[in-house]
Formats: sequence, C-alpha cells, structure tokens
Amino acid sequence: MLGVITLEDIRPIAIGAGILGTGGGGNPYLGSLHLAAIIREKGPHPLLDPLTLADDALICVAGNIGAPTVSIEKLPEGTEMYRALRLLEEHIDRKFDAIAIAEIGGANSMQPVIAGLQAGIPTIDTDSMGRAFPEIQMSSFLFGSSATVAPFAMVDAANNAVVIPTSVDDKWSEKIARNIAVSMGARAGLVSTIMSGKQVKEAGIHYVMTLAHHLGHQVLEAQEQKSDVPQVVADVLDGKVLFRGKIADVNRRTTKGFARGSILIKSFAGIDKLEIEFQNEFLIAYLNGKVVVTVPDLICMVTEDTGEPVTTELLRYGTRVCVIAVPAPEQLKTNIALDVVGPGAFGYDIEFTPLPGGKIGLMPKT
Amino acid sequence: MLGVITLEDIRPIAIGAGILGTGGGGNPYLGSLHLAAIIREKGPHPLLDPLTLADDALICVAGNIGAPTVSIEKLPEGTEMYRALRLLEEHIDRKFDAIAIAEIGGANSMQPVIAGLQAGIPTIDTDSMGRAFPEIQMSSFLFGSSATVAPFAMVDAANNAVVIPTSVDDKWSEKIARNIAVSMGARAGLVSTIMSGKQVKEAGIHYVMTLAHHLGHQVLEAQEQKSDVPQVVADVLDGKVLFRGKIADVNRRTTKGFARGSILIKSFAGIDKLEIEFQNEFLIAYLNGKVVVTVPDLICMVTEDTGEPVTTELLRYGTRVCVIAVPAPEQLKTNIALDVVGPGAFGYDIEFTPLPGGKIGLMPKT
Repeated sequence: MLGVITLEDIRPIAIGAGILGTGGGGNPYLGSLHLAAIIREKGPHPLLDPLTLADDALICVAGNIGAPTVSIEKLPEGTEMYRALRLLEEHIDRKFDAIAIAEIGGANSMQPVIAGLQAGIPTIDTDSMGRAFPEIQMSSFLFGSSATVAPFAMVDAANNAVVIPTSVDDKWSEKIARNIAVSMGARAGLVSTIMSGKQVKEAGIHYVMTLAHHLGHQVLEAQEQKSDVPQVVADVLDGKVLFRGKIADVNRRTTKGFARGSILIKSFAGIDKLEIEFQNEFLIAYLNGKVVVTVPDLICMVTEDTGEPVTTELLRYGTRVCVIAVPAPEQLKTNIALDVVGPGAFGYDIEFTPLPGGKIGLMPKT
Repeated sequence: MLGVITLEDIRPIAIGAGILGTGGGGNPYLGSLHLAAIIREKGPHPLLDPLTLADDALICVAGNIGAPTVSIEKLPEGTEMYRALRLLEEHIDRKFDAIAIAEIGGANSMQPVIAGLQAGIPTIDTDSMGRAFPEIQMSSFLFGSSATVAPFAMVDAANNAVVIPTSVDDKWSEKIARNIAVSMGARAGLVSTIMSGKQVKEAGIHYVMTLAHHLGHQVLEAQEQKSDVPQVVADVLDGKVLFRGKIADVNRRTTKGFARGSILIKSFAGIDKLEIEFQNEFLIAYLNGKVVVTVPDLICMVTEDTGEPVTTELLRYGTRVCVIAVPAPEQLKTNIALDVVGPGAFGYDIEFTPLPGGKIGLMPKT
C-alpha cells in the first residue's frame, strides 16, 4: 500500500479520487493545489494501514459538506477541517489518534490529509464510502454500528463554528448539518463519527487512497501510451464502459446545500442517449430511457480522450465523455446499507440490481 | 415590583406580555398552560430585581426561536430551554446564577421562568427588547456592548442539540441559528448572550415582567368594569389608540423560519384602512397608505371588545381589533440601536420618527 503521501502522489490521487467521486466530493484540482502547498510546508504525510490500528485508538471522520458547484467559486480558508477537529476534541475532552476519510471521492480525499498534517496526526487509508455520497449518514461506519454521526463539529472559512453534541439520529444530523452548511455558504469542514480503532477496522472501506493513487497512475500511464484511457479505468475498477458520447444538455441548480440536476449525453452517432440524474454525485443512469446503473454502484464520468474525471461542477455542453459503470464496495450492498444508500434512499422507486464483481475496498494489485 | 410569580400572576402576565409582543413572541395562552403546570409542581418562582444583581453574577439570556405560526401547531416538549441552558453551562464549564429574558413579548416572557424553575435559579425582571423582535441580534444587551450572542446553545423537542462556540458576529449567529431552527421544525429553545450582572444592570430593559403583569391586571379590571379596554392599554403604556376596525385581509406565510406577511384592517365605517406589515412581529403601520408607526415603536393589536392580545398566528378575517401605537423603550432609540432594530434593519427605506413619551423600562406605578 501507499504508506506515505508525497508531492509526486498528489497528481495520481487527484485523478483517481476524482473518478471515484462519481461527479462529487469537491473539485480535485483545487484540492491538489492545497495539499501540495501543505506538503511543501510540512513534508510528506504518513498514511496508516487500517488493519494496524490499535483496537482502542480514538478515530474521527473528516470531510467537507456543501455543494461542489460552490466549492470552485468559494475557496476554503484552509484550516476549516483542522479547526473542526480541534473543536470536537475540546468538546469531548480527548485527543484523536488518527483521521479516517469520510469519502475518497474528489477533493474530500485530500482534505483529511491536510487536516492530519495540520494536526500532526496520521490519516488512515480507509473511508466510509469507497466513492462519494451526498449525505453524511451514507457511511459504512454507521451501518448496523453503534457509532453515530453526533457529536460532530462544523467550521467555515470565517469564524463560525458549531458543535452538535447530540441528534435524534444520523438522518437528523444530516438535516441539521445541511442547514448549517447553507448558513455557511454551502461549504464547511465537518468532523464527526467518533469511533474506536476496532470499529474502523471492521466497518471501513480499506485501501481506498492506495486504490485512488493506483488508478491515477494507470490513467497517466495510459495517457502516455495513447491507449484507450477510459477502458483502462474500467479495467482497474472491475467496471465496464457504459457509454461514449457528447454532453448535449445540462440541467443543474445549487439548492438547499446540494448541486442537483441531470445530464443528457448523446452518442457520437447521435442515435443513443444516456441520461444521468445527480445530487452532488451521479445517482441513476438511463440508457435510451431504461435504467442501467443505480446507486450505490458507481457512475464514473471521464473525458473521452484523456480519461480524466468530469465532476458535477464542470459539466458543460459539448464535452466528449465516457461513462463507466463500477460495482460498489461490498459494504454498501447489504440490506442495511441499501436502506441508506440504495435508490430508495434518494426517492427513486427503482430496485438496485448490482453490477457483478467489484474491487473497491480490496488492496489493489500493483 | 412583582417579586414572585404565582399561579394567580400567570393570567395577567399572559395578557400583558401578549400585548407587548406586538404580534410575536409565541402564543401566550399555550405559555400560560405550561407555566401553570410547572408552578403547580415546583411552587412560585422568584423574580429578581435587576438592580440587586451582583456585578460578577453570571447571566444568560433565554428565549425561543422560530415562527409563531408553528408554535401553536407544534407544542414544546417542555424542557428545551432548560436543556439548552445546561448544555451551554457544560460548554463553558460554569454555572449561571440567573436568567435574563430575551423578549418580554408573548410566551417568551414565560419560557425563561419555566427554565428557571427547572434549573432552580431565579429569573431577572429584565429583558433585552421591552417587546418582541424577530431576530436574536436585536437585543439591548448587545448594543455597543462587549457581550455577543455566541457562545449559544439550541435544543429542540426531540433529542437534537447544538452549541455554537463562536460566530463572526451577532448577525451571523442569527443566520446560523435561524437555519438550525428551520431544521428543528421552526421551533427551538435558545440560551445565549453570556453576561455579567453589571452588564445586565447597564443594558437591560428593566421591570418588564412587572409591567406586563400590571398591564394585564389593568386589562382584566377594565374588562370587569366594562370600560374601553384598548384605551386603558394605551394609557398604561403611554401610547395612543391608532385605529379601530375589522381585519379585512391577511396575507401570511411561514417561510425561512419566520411568519411573514401583511394585514389589512378597515374601519367600521369602511372608509379608512390600516395596513400592517410583519416579520413575526408587527413592523410598519400605514394609515391610508401613509406610514404612521415603525419599529422599534410598538404596534400592539388587541381585540376591540376585551382588549386581549391578537398575535400573528391568530390573525384572521373579520376579527374586530384595535391597534395601539406605543413608544419604544429609550434603549432601542439610540443610533447604535436603530441600526439594528430601526426600519432600515428590516429592509425599509423609511426614517424612524419616534412617538413621544414612553414608559417601558421604567418601574410601573401600581
């Protein structure tokens, strides 16, 4: 596995995490610039093998909350997540031993590393999604677990800070956090879901940073060799190329703390069309009107020529893209998980038909 | 002054506070039932003379946040404010010596007394408005003071609790608190604005509970004597009867955590009309299209026959009402205060022309 994150690792991680972000998770380019600046200042950052965690280690989960469309207009101050971490430590009067990643997708893969560097504690090569999801209760750390989102802390770019000591349940935490995020301009650092090392080992989706890094490397190599980069992405993730075409329409609005909408992609021959609906992340893909992929399986979008991620906030008419369907990690496909991250949880009356196979959460063969 | 609140005091306080609430502050009838239940259980409640406070006493301010239209549909669990108080104490790791009232208007006059009874600490005969205002930064405790709304705590009827350790400024506190209140169903208990006894003595609007009680008593007496009750209200508050008529139209919506709208009242002869715009509380009154009263002066509405308060959530077509204009307490009329509670603060391009006189904040002559 990738034991240390250096300057050279940032570019591949940005590509890999961007692809795994299924459109969301925040802009990976901006995340890269930020992480590079911090690594230049503080040096490389240790990435912990989750399976080596002490059972009684005290772990928190770090991520951003907001709308990706805002993340490219309203830049972070840079210490939001770190300040949220310190605030939560103060509230519980204990220190965290390490940080788990909320979601590997997009810039959210890098912000916990930045917070770790600022706090002087390691980041764990584990997340709770193996992708990105729009809502905070959508976390493998919570499925059938005694862990809860609350207590949690949120901090914005200005001097606004909030602690939520208790909530009715994790969905209420999301509801409250989302409205606070709206007050904070649809962008805030969030630290939550306090767990033991044992809980992280049992419930986490492991080696996701290593996977993102590996995926990015393969993309860069395929670019150099001028091979079919989207096909390489599909192969690395045990997925399949679903559709190639040109974005013909984008219907996108930033509302209630999310970016919501749909995209229409037409095949180059102009005959077939793929429609994708999203809430920060791509949720459902319809091929010529028929459902072909649904959450929690990943709908990844890359540019047709370079295989680089196309995120929600960058969707625009005319971009030539390839859409890749990737099987979700096993942890997201249990009945308990599907109640929270399946199509029904997003208001769709569609049954989840899993794509076969899947590699996310397994140590990638490098 | 009224040194103790007993069961017998509740009815007059409800009437007086309802009138001072200028339409807002929460439904006083429901507040009465709640307070009566608690006093029956715990006994009468001491009301502190603000001028006897020790300079170094630790004081918090308690009130409800939300929309009055919601307050009559979604009843409180009953310990929201008390739990918010304990949560804030825990956060600062100190105990409060007494509670100041956020706003004397409506049920908000009674909830701090209930919280005081539950916490076993006295309530101070002082508020920060001498009426009700819709937003939390609209407080005399904050005008030109070193006190700030944050840190503050909010708790709802369920198990949701939030602490805001810091905010950019008091307007940001309002913005964040309002969105949290929306998550909490537009109704929550809020404890904020930590001050010393010295600060309360200097900045509070004193003897407002005694005034509400006195006003209510005069109303009840006038009802018995079948005198002109609205005129008695005007006399007690040093105000004037502005308009008598029938509610001809109500335009009211509950949006973004507030009840907003306007009311049209037509004179009994049907010739003159008074229009009032409100945000929880009545803000501006137009007589035949011309501005006649503006915030912070009080626009009080009572029933024409009994002189009982008519609050925003109870406005309805056909009610025969009398509107009374009452001069605001002096503390709300300084330049610093008018920036926060004058017509401009509510988006009106109208100059504040104060009504002459005023008695709110002075010990009522009984």
